[in-house]
Amino acid sequence: MIQVDLNADMGESFGPWKMGDDAALLKTVTSANIACGGHAGDADVMASTMRIALENGVGIGAHPGFMDIAGFGRNRMSVPRATLQNQIRYQVAASVGMARSLGAEVRHLKLHGALGNMTSEDPVLARDLYEAALSVAPEMIVMVLSSTAQQEAVLELGCQWAGEIFADRAYNDDATLVDRSKEGAVIHDPGRAGARMVEMVKAGAIITESGKHIPTAIDTICLHGDTPTAVQIAASVRATLEEAGITLAQFTGRTSV
Amino acid sequence: MIQVDLNADMGESFGPWKMGDDAALLKTVTSANIACGGHAGDADVMASTMRIALENGVGIGAHPGFMDIAGFGRNRMSVPRATLQNQIRYQVAASVGMARSLGAEVRHLKLHGALGNMTSEDPVLARDLYEAALSVAPEMIVMVLSSTAQQEAVLELGCQWAGEIFADRAYNDDATLVDRSKEGAVIHDPGRAGARMVEMVKAGAIITESGKHIPTAIDTICLHGDTPTAVQIAASVRATLEEAGITLAQFTGRTSV
Amino acid sequence: MIQVDLNADMGESFGPWKMGDDAALLKTVTSANIACGGHAGDADVMASTMRIALENGVGIGAHPGFMDIAGFGRNRMSVPRATLQNQIRYQVAASVGMARSLGAEVRHLKLHGALGNMTSEDPVLARDLYEAALSVAPEMIVMVLSSTAQQEAVLELGCQWAGEIFADRAYNDDATLVDRSKEGAVIHDPGRAGARMVEMVKAGAIITESGKHIPTAIDTICLHGDTPTAVQIAASVRATLEEAGITLAQFTGRTSV
Amino acid sequence: MIQVDLNADMGESFGPWKMGDDAALLKTVTSANIACGGHAGDADVMASTMRIALENGVGIGAHPGFMDIAGFGRNRMSVPRATLQNQIRYQVAASVGMARSLGAEVRHLKLHGALGNMTSEDPVLARDLYEAALSVAPEMIVMVLSSTAQQEAVLELGCQWAGEIFADRAYNDDATLVDRSKEGAVIHDPGRAGARMVEMVKAGAIITESGKHIPTAIDTICLHGDTPTAVQIAASVRATLEEAGITLAQFTGRTSV
Repeated sequence: MIQVDLNADMGESFGPWKMGDDAALLKTVTSANIACGGHAGDADVMASTMRIALENGVGIGAHPGFMDIAGFGRNRMSVPRATLQNQIRYQVAASVGMARSLGAEVRHLKLHGALGNMTSEDPVLARDLYEAALSVAPEMIVMVLSSTAQQEAVLELGCQWAGEIFADRAYNDDATLVDRSKEGAVIHDPGRAGARMVEMVKAGAIITESGKHIPTAIDTICLHGDTPTAVQIAASVRATLEEAGITLAQFTGRTSV
Repeated sequence: MIQVDLNADMGESFGPWKMGDDAALLKTVTSANIACGGHAGDADVMASTMRIALENGVGIGAHPGFMDIAGFGRNRMSVPRATLQNQIRYQVAASVGMARSLGAEVRHLKLHGALGNMTSEDPVLARDLYEAALSVAPEMIVMVLSSTAQQEAVLELGCQWAGEIFADRAYNDDATLVDRSKEGAVIHDPGRAGARMVEMVKAGAIITESGKHIPTAIDTICLHGDTPTAVQIAASVRATLEEAGITLAQFTGRTSV
Repeated sequence: MIQVDLNADMGESFGPWKMGDDAALLKTVTSANIACGGHAGDADVMASTMRIALENGVGIGAHPGFMDIAGFGRNRMSVPRATLQNQIRYQVAASVGMARSLGAEVRHLKLHGALGNMTSEDPVLARDLYEAALSVAPEMIVMVLSSTAQQEAVLELGCQWAGEIFADRAYNDDATLVDRSKEGAVIHDPGRAGARMVEMVKAGAIITESGKHIPTAIDTICLHGDTPTAVQIAASVRATLEEAGITLAQFTGRTSV
Repeated sequence: MIQVDLNADMGESFGPWKMGDDAALLKTVTSANIACGGHAGDADVMASTMRIALENGVGIGAHPGFMDIAGFGRNRMSVPRATLQNQIRYQVAASVGMARSLGAEVRHLKLHGALGNMTSEDPVLARDLYEAALSVAPEMIVMVLSSTAQQEAVLELGCQWAGEIFADRAYNDDATLVDRSKEGAVIHDPGRAGARMVEMVKAGAIITESGKHIPTAIDTICLHGDTPTAVQIAASVRATLEEAGITLAQFTGRTSV
């Protein structure tokens, strides 16, 4: 049996401002990366998103980012390392305790936005932030962008992790993403996105634009939650995977490639 | 043996701005009410204050307030009840997880500023907020202003609690505080503050301005941490209590008056 | 010639979060109340909303509120009066200068949310806040809810003002709004809203649910901008007014009823 | 007559948190760089600092920074250029309007913290941000770190500017500051700081550690306001300059080196 997880970022509404249709998306994904109030989300949004995830049997993840609400965690910031670690602890802690108050539990971690990008390039930063997060919740599974510095970091830490690929992004031959400015970098056709995922999951490999296979841990597929068509694309990818006989279920952690 | 706890608000620095001399005060108090990032404090301040409390054997408390940094939680706000409960959950959660990451634990709860004032007047609000806090950390001891609506609320909830009186505030005959605008409302002389506390702790009663005794649970004495002379006053009150043969130690929770 | 202005709240997006379809609404209204970054809006949103208003010949207004982004300025807050006045000055100043940088100008003021509600009940608060705003931009026209404490305040100040009524709210016989919880309090039918406005503008009076006429300064009609159907309702009300021969144009200030 | 201005950063308190002794420092400096609420300061702090500056005849400057209160504007952030320009406009606007409400006027601009550092390295960034600021208040004099990219930018813009050197920092032979980690980088002795300033002002040149003279526009000397001894150092530097016959007075703008 081949199995994979589907994840998406959620809980990114803030105060009176809505982002995405989390309730709908939570019917499709198996894991939800829920903002912690640092780059998005607030106490109400966290609580309600977690509650719906729990009702749908979706795995709850903490999704911390730079503490920059106005910039949505997209700006790279030169925050001192120890401060950044404490900010990660703070956000993960808020997430873990909020889940506990609902009878739920945070089972994975995923870094958001600029933090995600920076840690996929810098293994020391990745390790420092993962260590900080795990100091609050040692049992969490760390979701990493497969074959990046994030993966180096979890291997070095020896913690539980899960490898992630993108449903809608083309890959270069070195496993990096094709730059968004290039044609074909983003796959807008849900059918094609689903078919690619079937192929990669079955191959256990990232398949690059040129057709090269890069053997990779594919535990979960990242879907986007904040575009107008996010819900339809997610449902389509899921259907294509299911039709190909692939089981959609929460990942379990791994400790090796 | 007569025993009492000494508590003070701490961890109220923010970013580059310092408030109070927490390191010094943590040598005198037995319990610290540490801000959770809502009205004051940030991830660095929480972590460092908790670490010093731990090193000094001081009990760590979560001290949530209205999420209004610029107003320091002093403004009353008409936040919808369910939102306010989630904001309390969020802050307590951040506190509990940060403590966990340091190998420490949050053992009590105290509400800050305007929330403290409002809940000492409104038992339903008090109960709603205590319930929210306890949904995150059921084992916490709730610190209440003795003989106020806060006490009503914990008795109704049946949770562990500790009763608190003020070292430096005069009391009316109905156990409320003498209004700050009146002469004698605030006791500035550390010697007199200490002597009063000895008398009240031994009597197990609030002694009002008129000399009336109101039997009260006195588990902890509130000292102020943010005035220039806070450290000296705290040390003086502590010395006076010790000279009178009263043991200073962390409170244990109670469930009845 | 009978003339009236149409106004709506705008510029209430924040960072990555959108609210309302300002570009569309700016084709219908004649005055825009643009958030100043206190309860909503940010530097980008202010700039782009002002630019589109300018392009459409729509009057630009400063729309300050409580400085509580997470609560969208809807929470009543016990901010000290002098602080609140400075916060109004700050927001109006930001608005005036941003407009200046675009070659535009702020011509009116309207208070937002809880501040709007509180000042329609309390003429001293209204006067204090209007005075603060006018200390930054003395030439502004103050938009007031007709026949409320806001109107008392501008009459006392002797400043330029414009009276406002609601397109979609029913009125009691004392000129207050029918409570939202009552049936018929909010008018959802654009056709009816438009017809009522024609009647009231022609009568120069608020017409209450019971049919009573309360002669009132009707310089501008408030439309709502943040509902899904806001744009259609606004367009419909405008069309109905135009069909009735009423000219839609920016108000000029008045100094008496 | 030789004349120079003394400037310091001020208005960096926030809510209940104090920073520096602005009232004392405003008796020594001739120009005050007042935070605009972006990295520090709030509406109350801006208003009261401006009022005291006005009373002391001190020139008021807008001192915008990254909008990151918790980080005090010290973190470099990858904010998109157009957004950053709008954020500068917003802060300068708030400053200009607040001053106007007090009967004062903003006469200069100085960038804060990480923005100051980044613009002293990158002339295009400097020009973009100065242009944004001047679009709000075209009459402002731009304070630049002499002989850096900031100076390139104002020369290219053709705007009014004033050149600044540091009282307490040693210089390298290329006019950059000696790295803080090196011995002697920061001058702690007020007497020596004052003597150096006399020498440099009279020479019209930065004098480097090695003794090299770099002819430079020295219109103003930067003092630090947020250290415990800031007030004494400032007074000492001022006294030394006066004893040497140098007049302390607000700079007037220049348009060439």
